[in-house]
Amino acid sequence: LAWNTNVRVSLPAVCFVWQVAMIILFGVFVRYDKEADAHWSETKKEENITSNVENDFYYRYPSFQDVHVMIFVGFGFLMTFLKRYSFGGVGFNFLIAAFGLQWALLMQGWFHSLDPVTGYIYIGIENLINADFCVAGCLIAFGALLGKVSPVQLMVMTLFGVTLYAVEEYIILNLLHAIDAGGSMVIHIFGAYYGLTISWVLYRPNLHQSKRLHGSVYHSDVFAMIGTLFLWMYWPSFNSAICYHGDGQHRAAINTYLSLAASVLTTFAISSLSAKRGKLDMVHIQNATLAGGVAMGTAAEFMIQPYGALIVGFCCGIVSTFGYLVLTPFMEKCLKIQDTCGIHNLHAMPGVLGGVVGAITAATASNAVYSPEGLINTFDFQGNFATRSVTTQGAYQAAAMCVALIFGIGGGALVGLILRFPIWGDAEDDNCFDDEVYWEKLQGQSPPRGPSGLSVLLRDTMVVSGV
Amino acid sequence: LAWNTNVRVSLPAVCFVWQVAMIILFGVFVRYDKEADAHWSETKKEENITSNVENDFYYRYPSFQDVHVMIFVGFGFLMTFLKRYSFGGVGFNFLIAAFGLQWALLMQGWFHSLDPVTGYIYIGIENLINADFCVAGCLIAFGALLGKVSPVQLMVMTLFGVTLYAVEEYIILNLLHAIDAGGSMVIHIFGAYYGLTISWVLYRPNLHQSKRLHGSVYHSDVFAMIGTLFLWMYWPSFNSAICYHGDGQHRAAINTYLSLAASVLTTFAISSLSAKRGKLDMVHIQNATLAGGVAMGTAAEFMIQPYGALIVGFCCGIVSTFGYLVLTPFMEKCLKIQDTCGIHNLHAMPGVLGGVVGAITAATASNAVYSPEGLINTFDFQGNFATRSVTTQGAYQAAAMCVALIFGIGGGALVGLILRFPIWGDAEDDNCFDDEVYWEKLQGQSPPRGPSGLSVLLRDTMVVSGV
Amino acid sequence: LAWNTNVRVSLPAVCFVWQVAMIILFGVFVRYDKEADAHWSETKKEENITSNVENDFYYRYPSFQDVHVMIFVGFGFLMTFLKRYSFGGVGFNFLIAAFGLQWALLMQGWFHSLDPVTGYIYIGIENLINADFCVAGCLIAFGALLGKVSPVQLMVMTLFGVTLYAVEEYIILNLLHAIDAGGSMVIHIFGAYYGLTISWVLYRPNLHQSKRLHGSVYHSDVFAMIGTLFLWMYWPSFNSAICYHGDGQHRAAINTYLSLAASVLTTFAISSLSAKRGKLDMVHIQNATLAGGVAMGTAAEFMIQPYGALIVGFCCGIVSTFGYLVLTPFMEKCLKIQDTCGIHNLHAMPGVLGGVVGAITAATASNAVYSPEGLINTFDFQGNFATRSVTTQGAYQAAAMCVALIFGIGGGALVGLILRFPIWGDAEDDNCFDDEVYWEKLQGQSPPRGPSGLSVLLRDTMVVSGV
Repeated sequence: LAWNTNVRVSLPAVCFVWQVAMIILFGVFVRYDKEADAHWSETKKEENITSNVENDFYYRYPSFQDVHVMIFVGFGFLMTFLKRYSFGGVGFNFLIAAFGLQWALLMQGWFHSLDPVTGYIYIGIENLINADFCVAGCLIAFGALLGKVSPVQLMVMTLFGVTLYAVEEYIILNLLHAIDAGGSMVIHIFGAYYGLTISWVLYRPNLHQSKRLHGSVYHSDVFAMIGTLFLWMYWPSFNSAICYHGDGQHRAAINTYLSLAASVLTTFAISSLSAKRGKLDMVHIQNATLAGGVAMGTAAEFMIQPYGALIVGFCCGIVSTFGYLVLTPFMEKCLKIQDTCGIHNLHAMPGVLGGVVGAITAATASNAVYSPEGLINTFDFQGNFATRSVTTQGAYQAAAMCVALIFGIGGGALVGLILRFPIWGDAEDDNCFDDEVYWEKLQGQSPPRGPSGLSVLLRDTMVVSGV
Repeated sequence: LAWNTNVRVSLPAVCFVWQVAMIILFGVFVRYDKEADAHWSETKKEENITSNVENDFYYRYPSFQDVHVMIFVGFGFLMTFLKRYSFGGVGFNFLIAAFGLQWALLMQGWFHSLDPVTGYIYIGIENLINADFCVAGCLIAFGALLGKVSPVQLMVMTLFGVTLYAVEEYIILNLLHAIDAGGSMVIHIFGAYYGLTISWVLYRPNLHQSKRLHGSVYHSDVFAMIGTLFLWMYWPSFNSAICYHGDGQHRAAINTYLSLAASVLTTFAISSLSAKRGKLDMVHIQNATLAGGVAMGTAAEFMIQPYGALIVGFCCGIVSTFGYLVLTPFMEKCLKIQDTCGIHNLHAMPGVLGGVVGAITAATASNAVYSPEGLINTFDFQGNFATRSVTTQGAYQAAAMCVALIFGIGGGALVGLILRFPIWGDAEDDNCFDDEVYWEKLQGQSPPRGPSGLSVLLRDTMVVSGV
Repeated sequence: LAWNTNVRVSLPAVCFVWQVAMIILFGVFVRYDKEADAHWSETKKEENITSNVENDFYYRYPSFQDVHVMIFVGFGFLMTFLKRYSFGGVGFNFLIAAFGLQWALLMQGWFHSLDPVTGYIYIGIENLINADFCVAGCLIAFGALLGKVSPVQLMVMTLFGVTLYAVEEYIILNLLHAIDAGGSMVIHIFGAYYGLTISWVLYRPNLHQSKRLHGSVYHSDVFAMIGTLFLWMYWPSFNSAICYHGDGQHRAAINTYLSLAASVLTTFAISSLSAKRGKLDMVHIQNATLAGGVAMGTAAEFMIQPYGALIVGFCCGIVSTFGYLVLTPFMEKCLKIQDTCGIHNLHAMPGVLGGVVGAITAATASNAVYSPEGLINTFDFQGNFATRSVTTQGAYQAAAMCVALIFGIGGGALVGLILRFPIWGDAEDDNCFDDEVYWEKLQGQSPPRGPSGLSVLLRDTMVVSGV
């Protein structure tokens, strides 16, 4: 009676109301940035800009598109690995990302781009990148909830997630003036603990009743590799997308490229070491190989040196794979946290590692290594922060990590409680991880519920045929 | 007797003859643009260009590659959704796009880039983008015909389609001087009505005999999502690829990004609203989510404002999803138009909407909003058109829509008649949507034709195993 | 007794030892290039660079990301075509590429970017591209060995492959001063003959025992098309990535785009011509369509003219498809070379063709066609080579081809002998092409070994259900 997965009223209502709200708020608040406005030819004259190529669009658009692919194909396909929840993985990812980025443009705009004179938010390419970043935080949280919540719950989770993110980001980047170009703290720590806490509040004691669907099949694992690889390949763009022009973007790309390469090797090593006969586990390869990118988020544009980036990736691959082997089962059994995609291993731990690396490398930065002007560029020691020392900066970096953690856990607890109301259309414990609940025309195609005569034969056939 | 799907003579003959013709015509007519010619270092001096970065290559190459991905992976994988026509979807898409872009370089070159003095067409990166655009028109038409025609028919359809496109484009962009950066009219209206009219002429009254293959299976729907997402993500590049440098490209990307996001939400809303228990339909998610990109094609670089773009996307998602629910069945039953991919919903209607939006926003443009120089840049009010008013421009935009429609329907009728000759190797009505007809080594793998004892058991097994 | 596929010690050991070695060597040798160093703001002043956009990052990053996608998704998914070796195809590709690019940065750095004063290798975006190129050579070789070797053997193959590549590249590009922007010789000839020779040394007389797994199924062929298309679409970026700024990159992209388009048409033509009823073969479409890109590698930035590029693609599509039809079976039967992916047809022959085209077009270059400065830019006739004539250049291009061939065959023979030791964990002849050997949790999902009662029924079911 309480369990009713009918979302025919709630899902359209939420989509319509929120989209209409977006249109109204955009009408009131959002206009084009001067670099995207038709007055640009006048702006160029006023600011003595000699070439169109100086428009920020040309500095950042290739990175933006790479980030965009990570959000929709990267996260989306990474979550197709379940044998019967591929539609939900890629489809709900699509839905909440498309909603989240609109809300993020507004929330981040109010905090970062609001012109006090006109009252408008002016958006350009950098705002689009930041909106995608903000959405990434919510998609990480989605990873913990995959298969256990309804699309309406996901929309609510995204609405609050984006809101919390924008506040947390404002505190970390503006008030604490911490550096976090690739978001180890702002995106990954926040997103992961937000999702894990929600999952803890929504704990399902009888989730084992869906065990038959809680795993992959051969082809769904190959689909998930599409997501893995696009995340892996484009992560250098993610970490460098909003770095400062010139050497900042250049260095961030190199560091991330190297860190990711190292975590691939240690992931394969630990995965092989932990199994009989050295066999590899696709779950590790799909996820832990990415940990190097997460952990280079904060220090991406720092002078960590190529070997420093390799060390970061080396450690992350190990930590993350051990997480999948040891921590995920432990957390489910003892802490009652059900983490479908293992975001604790891929985002939380490497995010913390990335925050620590960032704090240490910031505190040890020097004029000799950076050059005086380079130090100012990298840490943005300008305006109110012109006199800040690097050790102080290191301390603020550490403080930023705590802020991300607090917002993740606190926000997750709050949102988790909201999502526990029995009105959101989520599925019963024996019906999780099943696309049939929210998707049409799959009735006849679904695997059988329980074992019984013919169905056993058919299921065995299915298994043998490797579907 | 009339039905013979053997293309062993015709397909190689067409490929060879046309490829040889391309080589000869390229030899006679096509040379590198000055920006791609080894004389560029001299050109730089003559034209006082101080940096290589001013080469148009660096302004447009990232967008070009995104468009290229849309043509081959976007359209190609979107058409893999049928359970037994994935090879045909992605493979024939590959064939006709690779042929079409060569012919487009010539046809568009004669109309747009022919140097009257030397008699040469000079090609650079912008020509490559335009050739991809032209091919997109034919691939849209392919969507209506998917599974019902032979590869030879598709080659003929492409040859004529590209030819018609080039003429239509010349009339719209040069003679009427309409603006259509993302091709709502030139590409989408033309391509959709071209394909729909051909499909109408080639109507198959007994197509229901192939009903068993006219649908998707679980994994083919996931493959199709690859196409959907790459189209969706890169559409901002599509609409901004040939906009003018600077704010033009920047604004077109922002508008398209927002419009697409809004159409995702209304697509999910209508899809859920229309089904029992609010279940979503993959067909809608795969297609109608893209309508916002189609409809921002004409007005992409206009000062439509962010909320304007959201409104366009909002409407398109609704219109397009309703199309799939109501219009496609109606058109098949009453108008005898069989539209495999539903291009009427994804391209025709949103294209018309885009054309209307373009006409209205052009007619209401003002110096205040655009700045005088911005207005000239956006609408290219130069040379013969220096004195054109924005209201006149609006009228010409509306006229352009009619031209696209006329070329689509007229050209489709003509080409449809040509394709009705029983010489092209298309399949019988009970053999459509089947890769076995044109692809090797699938004999044993095909689903059974009719129900009979064991085959029924096996088919049920297949269904249960969710292949 | 000799056959032991347990890699639980060897694989982790190799990964750890080599990754630790990388960290140490990077610590000793590798630093950021001046364009990626925080001192860049000082460099700009010293070198009178007025804009950040002149940082090489902005010239090459979009191409770099495209190349990166080719390496990991392109090569990776192209090798998922086997019905039960998709994990191995995409997974081992991931492993050896991530290792190879680190080793390549060092090896290529010592030969090309070592500063004799400081003893450091300074790496920037061009080094990342070159490392990806170097890895491509090893991935080509992997194509011949796919399914028959262990991951440890692949790591050894990559270690030696990268080493040999760096030496060969130094001889060809620096000593012989040959031009090979897209690597027809350096990458494709070397990689292909390296892999073919190893495969010859590792010949398996009883490989037919794995025949049941040596082929594709419907969905694995669609997965492989993802690889094909991303290689095909991004090949213009591959061939233009390290060309000189301006017209060089621009022209290379155009030439490759055209050559690839032509090879699609001739591939479809020959594939259809060679089969009963003109049916197409997915193997040809997946591979031979790419031959045009391989063959444009050397002459990418030459003034070969658009029709010249079409002719190259035209020939390659024919040669490569004939290779699959005739040469691969012949080589397996008579020369005892087992070439899983047919790299001889896709890389070796088109590579040789590309080398020949490069030599001829270099020898016939002229001041009239290139302009004096253009000729110097294109062939880098500077420093010690300022007085070299184009005919001499042609001769050196031909010599370069021989160097690539010698390194491929010689290196392959040496490495093949090393890999024959029975210590590397490779599978028995009746167990090749099977992911079960190196991947977890596939036991129950694997197709049956031999025919026996129920299993025959089940296998037929599987076949009918088109898995």
